[in-house]
Amino acid sequence: MPAIQPERLLADLRHLRTIGAQGRGVVRPAFSARDMEARRWLKTRYEAAGLDATIDGVGNVLGRSRKSGKALLVGSHSDTQPTGGWLDGALGVVYALEVARALAADAATAELPVDIVSLQDEESRFVGCLGSRSLIDGLTPEMEETAVDKDGIRMADAIREAGLDGVPRLRIARDRYAGFVEAHIEQGPTLEDTGNRIGVVTDIVGLRAIRFVFRGQQNHAGTTMMARRRDASSALYELAHRINTEFPKVAGERTVWTMGRLKVEPNATSIVPGYADLDLQFRDASDAPLDAFEQVVARIVAEMNARGGVSIEASPSRTPIKPTRMDDGLRAHIERAAERHAPGQWLRLPSGAFHDAGIISAALPAAMLFIPSIGGISHDFAEDSRDDDIVLGCQVLADAVASAVAAANAAAS
Amino acid sequence: MPAIQPERLLADLRHLRTIGAQGRGVVRPAFSARDMEARRWLKTRYEAAGLDATIDGVGNVLGRSRKSGKALLVGSHSDTQPTGGWLDGALGVVYALEVARALAADAATAELPVDIVSLQDEESRFVGCLGSRSLIDGLTPEMEETAVDKDGIRMADAIREAGLDGVPRLRIARDRYAGFVEAHIEQGPTLEDTGNRIGVVTDIVGLRAIRFVFRGQQNHAGTTMMARRRDASSALYELAHRINTEFPKVAGERTVWTMGRLKVEPNATSIVPGYADLDLQFRDASDAPLDAFEQVVARIVAEMNARGGVSIEASPSRTPIKPTRMDDGLRAHIERAAERHAPGQWLRLPSGAFHDAGIISAALPAAMLFIPSIGGISHDFAEDSRDDDIVLGCQVLADAVASAVAAANAAAS
Repeated sequence: MPAIQPERLLADLRHLRTIGAQGRGVVRPAFSARDMEARRWLKTRYEAAGLDATIDGVGNVLGRSRKSGKALLVGSHSDTQPTGGWLDGALGVVYALEVARALAADAATAELPVDIVSLQDEESRFVGCLGSRSLIDGLTPEMEETAVDKDGIRMADAIREAGLDGVPRLRIARDRYAGFVEAHIEQGPTLEDTGNRIGVVTDIVGLRAIRFVFRGQQNHAGTTMMARRRDASSALYELAHRINTEFPKVAGERTVWTMGRLKVEPNATSIVPGYADLDLQFRDASDAPLDAFEQVVARIVAEMNARGGVSIEASPSRTPIKPTRMDDGLRAHIERAAERHAPGQWLRLPSGAFHDAGIISAALPAAMLFIPSIGGISHDFAEDSRDDDIVLGCQVLADAVASAVAAANAAAS
Repeated sequence: MPAIQPERLLADLRHLRTIGAQGRGVVRPAFSARDMEARRWLKTRYEAAGLDATIDGVGNVLGRSRKSGKALLVGSHSDTQPTGGWLDGALGVVYALEVARALAADAATAELPVDIVSLQDEESRFVGCLGSRSLIDGLTPEMEETAVDKDGIRMADAIREAGLDGVPRLRIARDRYAGFVEAHIEQGPTLEDTGNRIGVVTDIVGLRAIRFVFRGQQNHAGTTMMARRRDASSALYELAHRINTEFPKVAGERTVWTMGRLKVEPNATSIVPGYADLDLQFRDASDAPLDAFEQVVARIVAEMNARGGVSIEASPSRTPIKPTRMDDGLRAHIERAAERHAPGQWLRLPSGAFHDAGIISAALPAAMLFIPSIGGISHDFAEDSRDDDIVLGCQVLADAVASAVAAANAAAS
């Protein structure tokens, strides 16, 4: 059984943390100078681990095993949120490196092929999960042309700036791989709240989003009688509160919905607003409650529009993400390893956040492992996990990867 | 009976419109170069009408009659909103000028003392109704020190820039005046909707405002289960919708309330907001529904706070304006003149907007006359009134002023 080296694991994680460190957090958005520095450092570590390492044209760092047979691809992303935590993505990237080293150092697993990867722009500076999309399907010309960050910088310019213009882009060789495994911090409080130390992901939840646009009539707040008003903000309050009242009746146990972004115009104390808009986002591991939500929304909007006054338009505000089931076979390897190292202290749970594994699952069997986030906090400088949880998670991943690759090659031979 | 000259009235109104004209609107905020140009032009017109004219240290233009006896003060303001209409304020200022000229030209009224005024900053660039406040009570040192406009310019600097530093400020001689009369566009649709051409103001409505602050916990919109959330935006939607549901049960016929300004932080689609705030403003001509609203608000906030989760603080966000009753005696003069010139086409109504007459009523009997606003529109470049309504309103005002001053001096002698 491969034994990871906790001090080497933690030292590499802490070194990666220094690249783009700000306070307790890390600022290493995709294609930034710090992001590229981290990727070049990872490439040298991959090479030191005996892998053939490449940085491709979108910044993916791939470390390819020289062993033959069905391989497992293991990794995550090393880019961060604009003000990110030190473990989101980085944990899974350094885990993969340590797993490759641990397997190589153990005679029983040294011949197992394990490729490792740090994917690019999972955090959506330009295109969410850019790196895994590029590996699986390539990028569309439209993506290449239209992707800009929040400051208006074009992705094509950022790629050139990063020195990646004209560098070949890797595409995954599907028949090389038995699957993809990604480890990650939970980014939520469930493991901590339930006293568990390892999460085995059952599904990556689906996500849909609707934008509501409310059109009324801007008026003077003193001279316009209530009966005559067409107040866009009041329509927004009503719709949002009715959604919060009606959704629980059709929601699943872990369905979530959020209306966290809105705009009211002109947004002045003494003016009846003539315009407002509101984003609704909802997520679940199955389509049924998401379908039910859409029906509830359609009914409330139709009722309110029938009344006249403010008109409400509802339209999808993004491409929906389908709920993704993780691969049962790979999951079984993770569960057995979890039970071995953390008996009774692991939990099956869906991932409420999206991950590269959701993209790669379209091409390969995919699975995920979580470790606890302290206080459930992520996407924040305060993001952290306990060292013993970090070490435990990596050991579970190493065992699971070893047994999954061994099984894939036993089956193949 | 004094006869106004419609062409002279309209010509002066149209000339004043050219100073700061932008498209169909006017941009002449208090103390701007255009505002001061308008005030200097008014001073020359006041002098041409045989009045002793002064621009005081806050920009008020006062035209004082040389006749003896109890005088009436007549006027409004010539500053505008940042993107204002051409009649808001300007109408009442030019009406006063034309009334003074008409009375002077008629032997039966030539000896009646009528002072006219263009007040400063009614539209709150620095301090709402600055000019009338200065005339009645003077300004407090605190106002002088702290007043800044939305661009951060200090009032003291704007006064210096306007050439008014050290210029004496007028205070009203209370025993000189029998009262103050202000004509204004309605800024609402009531006259137009009811087919009336003159409004006689019964009250200027009172106004109170409450700011709600919602404090919850910012979280990830995918990984934070609903039961664990402390969502500041959802609390805002609930409170606002319950206010809109409960207020009608205790509102008067013309009570209005508005929640047109809010903030949600961080205002992002995928983040459960941890903070929000919301302004509620409510107006009525009597205190009873305003008191009832405060009780409703206190009850809803207490109920929601008792539930835990998001905490809500409610506090007054401005000094309340007390409802102000217009003077019955002055009103009777306006009503008689309205019935003479527009029989059956005038209406008693409260003013939902605040006016200088509300400030001056603390020192002098005060009254107001409205003419129709086309479509009820004001504080907008599109603001307008029909020429025949403009002419009619001025003639009604001239008769009302003449009879009120005559009556005041008959009573006094």
